[in-house]
Amino acid sequence: NQPHRIAVIPGDGIGQEVMPEGLRVLRAAAERHGIALQLTEIPWASCDWYLQTGQMMPDDWKAQLAGMDALYFGAVGWPATVPDHVSLWGSLLKFRREFDQYVNLRPVRLFDGVPCPLAGRRPGDIDFLVVRENTEGEYTNLGGVMFAGTERELVIQESVFSRHGTDRVLKHAFELAMQRPRRHLTVATKSNGIAISMPWWDTRAREMHARYPEVSVDFQHIDILSARFVLQPDRFDVVVASNLFGDILSDLGPACTGTIGLAPSANLNPDRRFPSLFEPVHGSAPDIFGRQIANPVAMIWSGALMLDFLGHRAAHDDIVRAIEQVLATGPRTPDLGGSASTSEMGEAIAQRV
Amino acid sequence: NQPHRIAVIPGDGIGQEVMPEGLRVLRAAAERHGIALQLTEIPWASCDWYLQTGQMMPDDWKAQLAGMDALYFGAVGWPATVPDHVSLWGSLLKFRREFDQYVNLRPVRLFDGVPCPLAGRRPGDIDFLVVRENTEGEYTNLGGVMFAGTERELVIQESVFSRHGTDRVLKHAFELAMQRPRRHLTVATKSNGIAISMPWWDTRAREMHARYPEVSVDFQHIDILSARFVLQPDRFDVVVASNLFGDILSDLGPACTGTIGLAPSANLNPDRRFPSLFEPVHGSAPDIFGRQIANPVAMIWSGALMLDFLGHRAAHDDIVRAIEQVLATGPRTPDLGGSASTSEMGEAIAQRV
Ligand SMILES: CC(C)[C@H](C(=O)O)[C@@H](O)C(=O)O
Ligand SMILES: CC(C)[C@H](C(=O)O)[C@@H](O)C(=O)O
Repeated sequence: NQPHRIAVIPGDGIGQEVMPEGLRVLRAAAERHGIALQLTEIPWASCDWYLQTGQMMPDDWKAQLAGMDALYFGAVGWPATVPDHVSLWGSLLKFRREFDQYVNLRPVRLFDGVPCPLAGRRPGDIDFLVVRENTEGEYTNLGGVMFAGTERELVIQESVFSRHGTDRVLKHAFELAMQRPRRHLTVATKSNGIAISMPWWDTRAREMHARYPEVSVDFQHIDILSARFVLQPDRFDVVVASNLFGDILSDLGPACTGTIGLAPSANLNPDRRFPSLFEPVHGSAPDIFGRQIANPVAMIWSGALMLDFLGHRAAHDDIVRAIEQVLATGPRTPDLGGSASTSEMGEAIAQRV
Repeated sequence: NQPHRIAVIPGDGIGQEVMPEGLRVLRAAAERHGIALQLTEIPWASCDWYLQTGQMMPDDWKAQLAGMDALYFGAVGWPATVPDHVSLWGSLLKFRREFDQYVNLRPVRLFDGVPCPLAGRRPGDIDFLVVRENTEGEYTNLGGVMFAGTERELVIQESVFSRHGTDRVLKHAFELAMQRPRRHLTVATKSNGIAISMPWWDTRAREMHARYPEVSVDFQHIDILSARFVLQPDRFDVVVASNLFGDILSDLGPACTGTIGLAPSANLNPDRRFPSLFEPVHGSAPDIFGRQIANPVAMIWSGALMLDFLGHRAAHDDIVRAIEQVLATGPRTPDLGGSASTSEMGEAIAQRV
């Protein structure tokens, strides 16, 4: 019974405030289920560290982390002092790529006790999964600026999609759809406007569909799909999307369930050659940092996804149940209309576990 | 008093059903305000025409349309027989580009009588303007496929942003913000992920802001911005975005006000060197075509925007007032919970004008 080696990376802003609550609940679940965890706190991958050292991470970051089973990650970004593209490309986006975490799994659920911004929706009405490609696509630093600084300035930005990268995430999404009662998959593209990559994505999805004929598939352009998240959220089961579209949909989906503060995510390397990364969808939220009002649920739920991925389904279920109970009864943080602090809410969930 | 020359292009699907209502109201307003219109119905720019001729438009389309003052456009697209990227790149997207309609203006308003999908929002709470860049950006057919048909298949898709194209739409957005009481502008980018074009967009917006210091500016990443359309729609005044982001936000915004069926748009060539184009944001909607249940308001409101652009502000205001009244009292189409047909709703609006 080797302990699971977990790197704990709080990062910036409210990442530092929600991480202690995530760890509190993680330890409670580990104790209850006899799971051995070996936690290593990582001080880098933060803007503070960047300001001190001039880089987001030490040169040997990969060697330091490669032996880990998972990375438990808060949030990175402090745009007032470090541009976002510097901090993110120097940390989170590096992890996703160099550890080949090609599936970004983002559950969207409406809970009892959480005021829903959509009129008339009840818990159970919204319960779907966004499966986001996480290593390629629109997120690149390829391209450049021509005639820089002049009137003729011209910028080219390249997106890159590989069959390898696209097929594997589509396959993962179809497999997930197969495990769910509705077996429905929505494919987000924009083939009427983005004329090369998106029709090609459609083709890859159609070809993969041939291998999963039991799954019903719906192709939707990202514009109308976004509208339907608001108008018909109950129609979604599994939604698969490119890096950018998945990014948008996995903020929009949680917004439709009341708050970004709940949404967890799993950045998976399903082959387990590299550590996977578990993080809240919300970022570092500089606007609310320092007031102990951040909602810790996304961090805690991400910890549950981590335990699930490490083979501890029962511990995952316990944590999710505890989250459900505390959301229903309180204490709740201000984003949910309550007045509890981050740690009051975290403690309440830990106690239920 | 030369008549305004207007090309009438119904296109496909419900474009054909809502166009007669748009024309009915246009004629009513023209009569009441003594506006001379010369309407020319265009049978091409439709998938039917494509199936007959093998192209979306005749070779001399530009010569035929260049003398027009405006194009009044329904919708194009019939994916069951013609792939969307073929039909759209062969018509609408050509108009936008070759007629240099670089501003796509899309008002978003919550009306009295329209059930709002967002809980607790009232008319007046949502009233903003999406200003979308309409000629370049992410919508390109540049790039290509390497190792096509093999395991190594790789797709490059290029986005193109020029200083010329970006600055002029930013300027237009700042000018619009200056005319509104709140003078607030939200800039949609994604500079933490899309590492070349988006930080550059931020820079262009910051530079333009220096010329409009009275406008308060907010930079928001497209993911969290989408979430805020749902959570805090009242905070928006003018939102400026790239072609793709504007596309997404101008479907999502109207969804938050109840239905895509209301949203109009103006594809403007502000220099007036070429005709501008006015069209509903909804597409051809094959799923509801043929049942006379399409909501004609977006088409009618687009006609009002056209009259405004042609110098007839009072006629515009009359039409918008008539729309407001009919939305409040009925008759209403099924998407608004009513049971009126497309033409019943159109007639009711025409009568009020
Ligand atoms: C039909 C499509 C190409 C078009 C677009 O994406 O621009 C439409 O969605 C719109 O918003 O006008
Ligand atoms: C911080 C940012 C680069 C990141 C992304 O866009 O992927 C975040 O928004 C997310 O969704 O994980």
